[in-house]
Amino acid sequence: MTRLEEVHAPVADGLALVEEALEAVARIEYPLLAQLVAHVLRPGGKRIRPTITLLAGKLFDYRLDKLVPMAAAMELLHTATLVHDDVLDRSEVRRGQPTINRVASAGTAVLVGDYLFAKSADLVASTENLRAMTLFARTLMVICTGELRQAFGAKDPNSRREDYFRWVEGKTAALFATAAESGGILGGAPEPALDALRGYGYNLGMAFQVVDDILDFSGSQEQLGKPARNDLLQGVLTLPTILYLERHPQDGRLRRVLAGRATPAEVDELAEEIRSSGVLADAYAVAEQFAGAARAALERLPNQPARQTLASLIEFTVRRSS
Amino acid sequence: MTRLEEVHAPVADGLALVEEALEAVARIEYPLLAQLVAHVLRPGGKRIRPTITLLAGKLFDYRLDKLVPMAAAMELLHTATLVHDDVLDRSEVRRGQPTINRVASAGTAVLVGDYLFAKSADLVASTENLRAMTLFARTLMVICTGELRQAFGAKDPNSRREDYFRWVEGKTAALFATAAESGGILGGAPEPALDALRGYGYNLGMAFQVVDDILDFSGSQEQLGKPARNDLLQGVLTLPTILYLERHPQDGRLRRVLAGRATPAEVDELAEEIRSSGVLADAYAVAEQFAGAARAALERLPNQPARQTLASLIEFTVRRSS
Repeated sequence: MTRLEEVHAPVADGLALVEEALEAVARIEYPLLAQLVAHVLRPGGKRIRPTITLLAGKLFDYRLDKLVPMAAAMELLHTATLVHDDVLDRSEVRRGQPTINRVASAGTAVLVGDYLFAKSADLVASTENLRAMTLFARTLMVICTGELRQAFGAKDPNSRREDYFRWVEGKTAALFATAAESGGILGGAPEPALDALRGYGYNLGMAFQVVDDILDFSGSQEQLGKPARNDLLQGVLTLPTILYLERHPQDGRLRRVLAGRATPAEVDELAEEIRSSGVLADAYAVAEQFAGAARAALERLPNQPARQTLASLIEFTVRRSS
Repeated sequence: MTRLEEVHAPVADGLALVEEALEAVARIEYPLLAQLVAHVLRPGGKRIRPTITLLAGKLFDYRLDKLVPMAAAMELLHTATLVHDDVLDRSEVRRGQPTINRVASAGTAVLVGDYLFAKSADLVASTENLRAMTLFARTLMVICTGELRQAFGAKDPNSRREDYFRWVEGKTAALFATAAESGGILGGAPEPALDALRGYGYNLGMAFQVVDDILDFSGSQEQLGKPARNDLLQGVLTLPTILYLERHPQDGRLRRVLAGRATPAEVDELAEEIRSSGVLADAYAVAEQFAGAARAALERLPNQPARQTLASLIEFTVRRSS
């Protein structure tokens, strides 16, 4: 099985600089705030998005002066959306730690998220690359539109897997695609390679989120760093639940769960049934399809060692347990 | 007295296109959401920031294809910060209407603000101007850092007018400066003119916010479209209160107000005393100083009709009653 360390190794120099950039973001004059920001950005995260940017750049011109700010911006933008998501969902735990809205307030979480958004835009601007900046702005739009779609659609019991794929596009795949493409842009990749990188990132992101949503059913709170069955508890539809609904359209409990009218015990019971119904295997098959598309996109890129690492990252994504 | 219509008139064509751009932003597939966005962006606002951008451009090359998206982005960014501010302050009324966090939820207000941020970045990117995009990213940073400063500092009874000026820089002056400078950038203004535009916008923004904070004490809810004495009620220090503190350092009531331990009647009493103490005239003198600096900056710009309009905008800013 692929370990994340193996994926990080070829770009360890760039990742160390990314960590430095993230530490600098947390250097704010207000100690409480500095602590909150350092907390959400602390080392030890998977850093998958910056790793993708650095590896994509390494396929071409590995210019760390441009790639590092872009890679750090990808992590910051991702973190900003998590911080704001936790306000939306009123989540209390994330990555095994209390959320900002829990330890401080929703208002502080809004401010911190905005600050991380702003800092990410600033880092992208420091690349002085018009195309990377334009891509970043467009990605912001796709992410926010996706969040709106999920917020307004993901409690609708008539949602289908096509709806879910659109939510995930905005929620995860767009940023993975941009992480990959921007690495190519700043590495000076030719147009067909940029297209391949975008395809790789997009499909890897889709696979990543599908697996995330499976782990929400199959993992423990300890493994996940957040409560298990969180989506169902929040009344948010994800792929396992949608696949279960396809098989059992007559099951009325889900409507009660989505309407927030079910007891925690009922949610647990339904989660257990979804888990044992076989839909998780079906969901893995969907993740495997996206993984296959990501592998195919890699074939269109230069046959360099970094390409092998990008391939390993696909295996890690599909097989991880947290 | 200068009426806002006179300031709008020379760039009425551009402003009409800005309104169209803002209407397009509100065209979202979810009716509730479309309604909320249309609500915060509805016509009838002062549109001061887009007007500045258009007038600054008109001093040079009045290229509406570039100026209109930038001008619309300025209004969107401003609106985004208001929407998030209302979450922070738990405000219930803004521009005479209930806030989004009131009619929907804090989470929805976070989403709507993020969407407006993203859309503004996207509009700036559509100018394809690297310098405008970089300026925008930098401005986002200054605004967010300023918000953090105000959030963490503006309840500290030891704050002084220098602290206040720093908050206002981030809260208002940075965006006014960028509105002016970006109009110059997209109009192809030479370097010294960009510097003058930045100075004009910065000082106009400072004057604007000082007057806003005076009106919070002197105006009625009807005039302001939000509760009067709101800052004091929220326990937020602004210039009138700081000037009052300079004169009456022994007044212990303010500490209770800032700590949220005063009754509404006590807040009203203190507000009335601040109002009748003469500090509002002192605050107007401060606004007038900034207005003078803005006028001086205009002298360094081409003597065009648009320059006269930018001068009228200073008079409007200082003399307005809402």
